[in-house]
Amino acid sequence: MTAEPDPSPSPAPAPPPRATDFSTARLEAFSDGVFAIAITLLVLDLNVPEPDALDGQSLRHALAHQWPAYFAYLVSFLVIGIIWINHHAMCALARRVDRRTLFANLFLLLTVSVIPFPTRLLATYLTAGHGDSHTAAAIYAATMVAMGLAFSLLFLAFTRDARNLHAPIPPEALRSAMRRFGIGGLCYTATIALAYISPVAMLATHALLAVYYCFDQLAPARARA
Amino acid sequence: MTAEPDPSPSPAPAPPPRATDFSTARLEAFSDGVFAIAITLLVLDLNVPEPDALDGQSLRHALAHQWPAYFAYLVSFLVIGIIWINHHAMCALARRVDRRTLFANLFLLLTVSVIPFPTRLLATYLTAGHGDSHTAAAIYAATMVAMGLAFSLLFLAFTRDARNLHAPIPPEALRSAMRRFGIGGLCYTATIALAYISPVAMLATHALLAVYYCFDQLAPARARA
Amino acid sequence: MTAEPDPSPSPAPAPPPRATDFSTARLEAFSDGVFAIAITLLVLDLNVPEPDALDGQSLRHALAHQWPAYFAYLVSFLVIGIIWINHHAMCALARRVDRRTLFANLFLLLTVSVIPFPTRLLATYLTAGHGDSHTAAAIYAATMVAMGLAFSLLFLAFTRDARNLHAPIPPEALRSAMRRFGIGGLCYTATIALAYISPVAMLATHALLAVYYCFDQLAPARARA
Amino acid sequence: MTAEPDPSPSPAPAPPPRATDFSTARLEAFSDGVFAIAITLLVLDLNVPEPDALDGQSLRHALAHQWPAYFAYLVSFLVIGIIWINHHAMCALARRVDRRTLFANLFLLLTVSVIPFPTRLLATYLTAGHGDSHTAAAIYAATMVAMGLAFSLLFLAFTRDARNLHAPIPPEALRSAMRRFGIGGLCYTATIALAYISPVAMLATHALLAVYYCFDQLAPARARA
Repeated sequence: MTAEPDPSPSPAPAPPPRATDFSTARLEAFSDGVFAIAITLLVLDLNVPEPDALDGQSLRHALAHQWPAYFAYLVSFLVIGIIWINHHAMCALARRVDRRTLFANLFLLLTVSVIPFPTRLLATYLTAGHGDSHTAAAIYAATMVAMGLAFSLLFLAFTRDARNLHAPIPPEALRSAMRRFGIGGLCYTATIALAYISPVAMLATHALLAVYYCFDQLAPARARA
Repeated sequence: MTAEPDPSPSPAPAPPPRATDFSTARLEAFSDGVFAIAITLLVLDLNVPEPDALDGQSLRHALAHQWPAYFAYLVSFLVIGIIWINHHAMCALARRVDRRTLFANLFLLLTVSVIPFPTRLLATYLTAGHGDSHTAAAIYAATMVAMGLAFSLLFLAFTRDARNLHAPIPPEALRSAMRRFGIGGLCYTATIALAYISPVAMLATHALLAVYYCFDQLAPARARA
Repeated sequence: MTAEPDPSPSPAPAPPPRATDFSTARLEAFSDGVFAIAITLLVLDLNVPEPDALDGQSLRHALAHQWPAYFAYLVSFLVIGIIWINHHAMCALARRVDRRTLFANLFLLLTVSVIPFPTRLLATYLTAGHGDSHTAAAIYAATMVAMGLAFSLLFLAFTRDARNLHAPIPPEALRSAMRRFGIGGLCYTATIALAYISPVAMLATHALLAVYYCFDQLAPARARA
Repeated sequence: MTAEPDPSPSPAPAPPPRATDFSTARLEAFSDGVFAIAITLLVLDLNVPEPDALDGQSLRHALAHQWPAYFAYLVSFLVIGIIWINHHAMCALARRVDRRTLFANLFLLLTVSVIPFPTRLLATYLTAGHGDSHTAAAIYAATMVAMGLAFSLLFLAFTRDARNLHAPIPPEALRSAMRRFGIGGLCYTATIALAYISPVAMLATHALLAVYYCFDQLAPARARA
């Protein structure tokens, strides 16, 4: 942004841009928009009980009865927020993106922007009993699996061509990142099974996984770069 | 963005900006916002079945019964996503936009931001039988025709004045782009007829057309430029 | 954005920034977000008729019956789009904004972001007969009066301190702009009266006024600057 | 942004960026998105009375009867708008943000994006009588307490490491800012008690507090910096 010479040594001369390359700026702008909207739309599913439907119950009781909606809201908010932070960190690695990366990013945005649907589903059926709470919880967990997979694919698309990066990522850092994606993916997949045992435990696990991801699985790759 | 001399030879000296010219930055920011919101609002039409309305059916069955909603959601998401990528590519050609382009862009945004309505219509009536599924499908297809038309008009507005572009587009590249827009427009229009034969086939065709458009009809123009 | 010396002579040395000044970048980003969301939320009020509520009517008839909703949607879309374009042009005059301008901008955003409400009101009551269609139309027209007033106030806030502008605006250009705002404001106010005669004519007038405003009432000020 | 030498003396040499640092640009873009969406979603809770539910009442009366919804809409719009302006001012202090600040910012965005829920709650129950209006008002006030707390935490995160700022903030300015946050926090907390006496007075107090906050509690810190 400034005219002062950049003191950091560039690790390799930048190749000339190809016709199918894009700057990361607009990818980030569009993605930020989708993340921001998805995270904010979640609030539309916190229902205000109709006064006529209280049936003599106090508002306080009616609201307390909706705890699954608040719990699902918080976990989904946290998940989208963490994914945004990690998307931010991943984009910071790249100096430009190719068309393949745009499509991988679109797949990630699909899995993120659909999150309000399984969130609403889980809020409605978490305490429904029967098999329905299991169905809702399994769909929620499967959405998270798809999002984790999309994030891993996007990382591969971003790092596939070292010339698109500000600095090449050492192979061992890449392997370490992929190993961590793999472990995360296994944990996410295991929560689908957990959904059939305890939907509440499934949701609590995703809260914990979000906190785990917040400890920056990209830090090693970026630190070495 | 950097102080290093730009090695790419500028094909023509930039004319002084006129009073009615704008940078592309804010056009892109506003468009990205509308694209991002339209693509994310689609999720509001994935309905969660009310527990009281299940009528003894399992949630799994009730959700499976909504497959037209998922199908329409996916196709509309893909269409908006592809249009965003192509909009992105088109804006990269221009160094500034005139007021005519702003209005052409507003017309494109109108056709994009209305997409949640025909999507919801189709999700509700795709399997309705009678003539209603045909009506819903024809309206969906007509929206796509309008969007394709708006995109072509925007391309014309962008490229009309070569001084607004980073580099002039050779006439044969322009003709090739217009020919491809024409063919795309004919295909889109044909899906209105298809809507009266098979609404499901109409929707599947739009999924295929979106994939066709993803193979970058703007690439030749940009490659030669 | 580039390190090349800027050939355009700066009309006056830029004063040092004061502690309460801001760049226009984030004002534009936030405003673009609100404009983009308000214009896209309008689609949520295009209702899909429930299959059970068709009462033997065809979908085609039920949709045609909703013409006031499409008409109101189109006019409100056009109004917000034009205001965005003019906001864009106005921001291009300034090199920074003070806190007073931020508040004037917030007032404009209030009048813009509320537009989906009178639009929905008018869509529901345009053909209601009785006095209710007049009430709905008058509220719609009054919202437009408030928006025009907010836009004029914002113009005053932007141009109040010439040091915040890229170039001073000649007094006669300012007077001309204010005269045009005044005429526009009178026309807008007259549509409140028109709402009590013919709500449909009121809405058509706003479509025409939007087209009038699209012929850039800011062009003279910018051309001289 | 320009190549001209910056005349303001840099108070300290910028340390090299660490692997966990980010520019403020994308934090601002994402936050602007969430602020813009939350402030615009408020309009979805201004209900249009169903024509069939008027019961012979005029639309004018039915709309006037909804005054708590307009009042709550205006106060929440003002609160989010002011918070955006102050967020804007706070970000202008920093040249980069660390991961801790990203999380503090996410917490602020949580409290901002949830505001449409207590707003809707208050609009529905402000005049409900019984204890329910007190419950709704207390939840509204508690949301504002959480938002004020989140803003104070974000200020601490932003200013914790002086190397992340454009210029260090003198200790007495920091202490003054924290004192003002503390007084604001006490006032906010007191409105929870007020909610149990008069929900309308609670809402009016938040309108006044928003106006108080608009007189830039950050100005002293920024003026000295």
